[in-house]
Amino acid sequence: MTEVEAKKPQESLQDRLSQVVDLLQKHKLVEDLTHRQEGQHHDLVENLVHRQNLAELQRKLDELHPADIAHILESLPLDDRMTVWQLVKAERDGDILLEVSDAVRETLIADMDDHEILAAAKEMDADELADLAPELPRDVVHELMETLDAQQRERVRSALSYEEDQVGALMDFEMVTIRDDVSLEVVLRYLRRLKELPGHTDKLFVVDYDGVLQGVLPIKRLLVNDPDKQVAEVMATDPVTFDPDEDGYDAAQAFERYDLISAPVVDKNGKLIGRLTIDEMVDLIREESESEVLNMAGLREEEDIFASVWKSVRNRWAWLATNLVTAFVASRVIGLFEGSIEKLVALAALMPIVAGIGGNSGNQTITMIVRGMALDQVQLSSGSRLLRKELGVALVNGIVWGGVIGAVAYYLYGSWQLGAVMTGAMTLNLLLAALMGVLIPMTLQRLGRDPAMGSSVMITAMTDSGGFFIFLGLATLFLM
Amino acid sequence: MTEVEAKKPQESLQDRLSQVVDLLQKHKLVEDLTHRQEGQHHDLVENLVHRQNLAELQRKLDELHPADIAHILESLPLDDRMTVWQLVKAERDGDILLEVSDAVRETLIADMDDHEILAAAKEMDADELADLAPELPRDVVHELMETLDAQQRERVRSALSYEEDQVGALMDFEMVTIRDDVSLEVVLRYLRRLKELPGHTDKLFVVDYDGVLQGVLPIKRLLVNDPDKQVAEVMATDPVTFDPDEDGYDAAQAFERYDLISAPVVDKNGKLIGRLTIDEMVDLIREESESEVLNMAGLREEEDIFASVWKSVRNRWAWLATNLVTAFVASRVIGLFEGSIEKLVALAALMPIVAGIGGNSGNQTITMIVRGMALDQVQLSSGSRLLRKELGVALVNGIVWGGVIGAVAYYLYGSWQLGAVMTGAMTLNLLLAALMGVLIPMTLQRLGRDPAMGSSVMITAMTDSGGFFIFLGLATLFLM
Repeated sequence: MTEVEAKKPQESLQDRLSQVVDLLQKHKLVEDLTHRQEGQHHDLVENLVHRQNLAELQRKLDELHPADIAHILESLPLDDRMTVWQLVKAERDGDILLEVSDAVRETLIADMDDHEILAAAKEMDADELADLAPELPRDVVHELMETLDAQQRERVRSALSYEEDQVGALMDFEMVTIRDDVSLEVVLRYLRRLKELPGHTDKLFVVDYDGVLQGVLPIKRLLVNDPDKQVAEVMATDPVTFDPDEDGYDAAQAFERYDLISAPVVDKNGKLIGRLTIDEMVDLIREESESEVLNMAGLREEEDIFASVWKSVRNRWAWLATNLVTAFVASRVIGLFEGSIEKLVALAALMPIVAGIGGNSGNQTITMIVRGMALDQVQLSSGSRLLRKELGVALVNGIVWGGVIGAVAYYLYGSWQLGAVMTGAMTLNLLLAALMGVLIPMTLQRLGRDPAMGSSVMITAMTDSGGFFIFLGLATLFLM
Repeated sequence: MTEVEAKKPQESLQDRLSQVVDLLQKHKLVEDLTHRQEGQHHDLVENLVHRQNLAELQRKLDELHPADIAHILESLPLDDRMTVWQLVKAERDGDILLEVSDAVRETLIADMDDHEILAAAKEMDADELADLAPELPRDVVHELMETLDAQQRERVRSALSYEEDQVGALMDFEMVTIRDDVSLEVVLRYLRRLKELPGHTDKLFVVDYDGVLQGVLPIKRLLVNDPDKQVAEVMATDPVTFDPDEDGYDAAQAFERYDLISAPVVDKNGKLIGRLTIDEMVDLIREESESEVLNMAGLREEEDIFASVWKSVRNRWAWLATNLVTAFVASRVIGLFEGSIEKLVALAALMPIVAGIGGNSGNQTITMIVRGMALDQVQLSSGSRLLRKELGVALVNGIVWGGVIGAVAYYLYGSWQLGAVMTGAMTLNLLLAALMGVLIPMTLQRLGRDPAMGSSVMITAMTDSGGFFIFLGLATLFLM
């Protein structure tokens, strides 16, 4: 879509959001009044005020960057969101749809008729269309494809044939290509004829007559070199390139590592087929870290914070159910020792401490290891070394904190045996937590699974059931 | 420092890491042999093989990008890390130090003498020096400052005067400035004379004779416009600018929102004093999301995964201690009801279920709210709406899952009253979790604290103690 030059924000995001909310409040107040006085003759006046407020709101919205409107839409409850969405000029719908989160986009598209969707989509580039297509009604997508020329249609198809996170789905097609047998002067003249360069153009792509990538010409080199030089003399012949099948997150790490702004995507034969840009990569980096946070908290996916109760229940369902099962198993472990608890009820009060500290400590370990894996720092060969370290940490913590809590137990219940069991159980459970904290993600990785997914639930299940078993088991052996 | 052109990685990061590890293994094997046979006459031969391996390793390292060496250093245990670090060519030390994580940098600097540190630092720009300075020995920093010219020294001082996350500490000084009363042709000639442009130069900064920013000239516009036009005609007069006192994370969000690559930093009088670039912002975005993950898991800061046991214990200490206190409180709550547990020992087995599910559910809510706050989507005014929604979700979950677990309790223990108490306690604890999940972060924000910090520990403390109290309290009321 056309690129909007970002203007200096005269006011913070929060300020702008508050202004919109204020205008919406006024609007609703007037609407309320209008409804209440429907039988009376004030309608005309009220309607006028009403319309004035809306006009002011619309003026405000027209001044804002699409990314800012997207943010405001995300920050508004459903009814207000729809009021604002209807006020946004139709020609900006497309830009805004591309900026909002998936969950919010769904609510916006649900509010548009086919005609509006088509109008918004017509302004989009092939890669943008492909981003949006999975969320549009099928017949709208079909109709859209018909309006495209053959090349565009091929591009949308190609982009749709990749997984959401593959390079092929993330690349765009806005490449400026040149030949290597022309002078920089010719390149400069060619660029001037283009009138506009695509966003994030920090390099031009040098291709041969078959479209095979020969190298890249960084704009920086174009600018500082003698215009009489040939492209071939100045270009970088060995640039970082990506494969459309590659994982987008790996590409993002390469962008980060090598400080890239754009990079060519080539097929198996070296033919240039698209390009990646840093803005897509930044979005990916953020999404990736966010999904880590969400998964750890047991949310399946990003949630519109103003989603309906029912939608939220569905999003959170899977992890709660898993948690219920693991909690039930832990409960059965306790059930095994009901006889011991009956005899020494202090056990019931002390056992959650053993389980809780174990869970916290295990989560520390597993987070470290999973992060190290995500950053490719952990090799299977370093597993035993990491395990030794984590066991060492667990032993220190077990002796220190287990000692403290053992002393407290002794003080509270007057039994040094109980204190000793407490200290022993804490230490053993922390060792178990360290062991599992290293083994669970390593095993998941060796099985080819995502080590982050569910690892927190698993470790907590282990340290709960394990903690109860160790503590109540030791107590039964030594105190009964 | 000099910019290194990133080359196409012929092999993946993991491959390269494995190669280095292999060479290190060989090296150690030989060293072992050498030690064992020290009395004998094989020394010479072994030493030769030994040196050959090291030479091969060194060749391998010389081929790699500093960012890749940094990654390898981060992925190696301490002793191997030091072997590799000593093999790295001295002139690349600086680049690599700037790339590694803080925790690993500390271990590398500890291994360098003052002379080596000075040599590495001499190649650095002012902003890079300022990044490194806090971790260097004081007298080295002092000596370094002496070697700088007045402008550079001033820049280092200025960068050091800001907090680590403020724009002033993140900006660099590599700006290309031009005047607005010259033609684009003149600008092009000027750039050619510069021979090299700073990395991430997507725009030139237009300043007047006092250094006050007049606008920016995007390179894209420079390239596509008629060279006879004046800069003033073509430049953007209202660019996004940043203030050195601004929070870096807000700046990163603006970069993301407006797809910026570089942006000017100006002081109160509009004078250009530095520039921000996307690479620093990407690092910040990653760090921010990572610190969220780390905090949620109870790690104080990023940890070198090969850190010593003692360092790890210190890093994890604070949260474990907090957790110990909250677990102890929960234990005392159970202690209040020892009489009831003695009479009905099933309570001991069931109570962790109520607490556990509440904790999980509360963490889901608080993660949502904290994320919404981090993205500026949550306003204090929307608090009551969010609370109603979360309470709704909790009620549905309480009735459904509480019902399931109540039925299970009835089946196991044959008492429908116990089942009913279980269902009631689950529902009430989920409602408590929802209430606290909204109130805790909102209160922290209103108090001007970081809502993410410790919120998970707090919510778990509430749902543990609260869950035990509610369940055992209901049981005491209705079953005793």
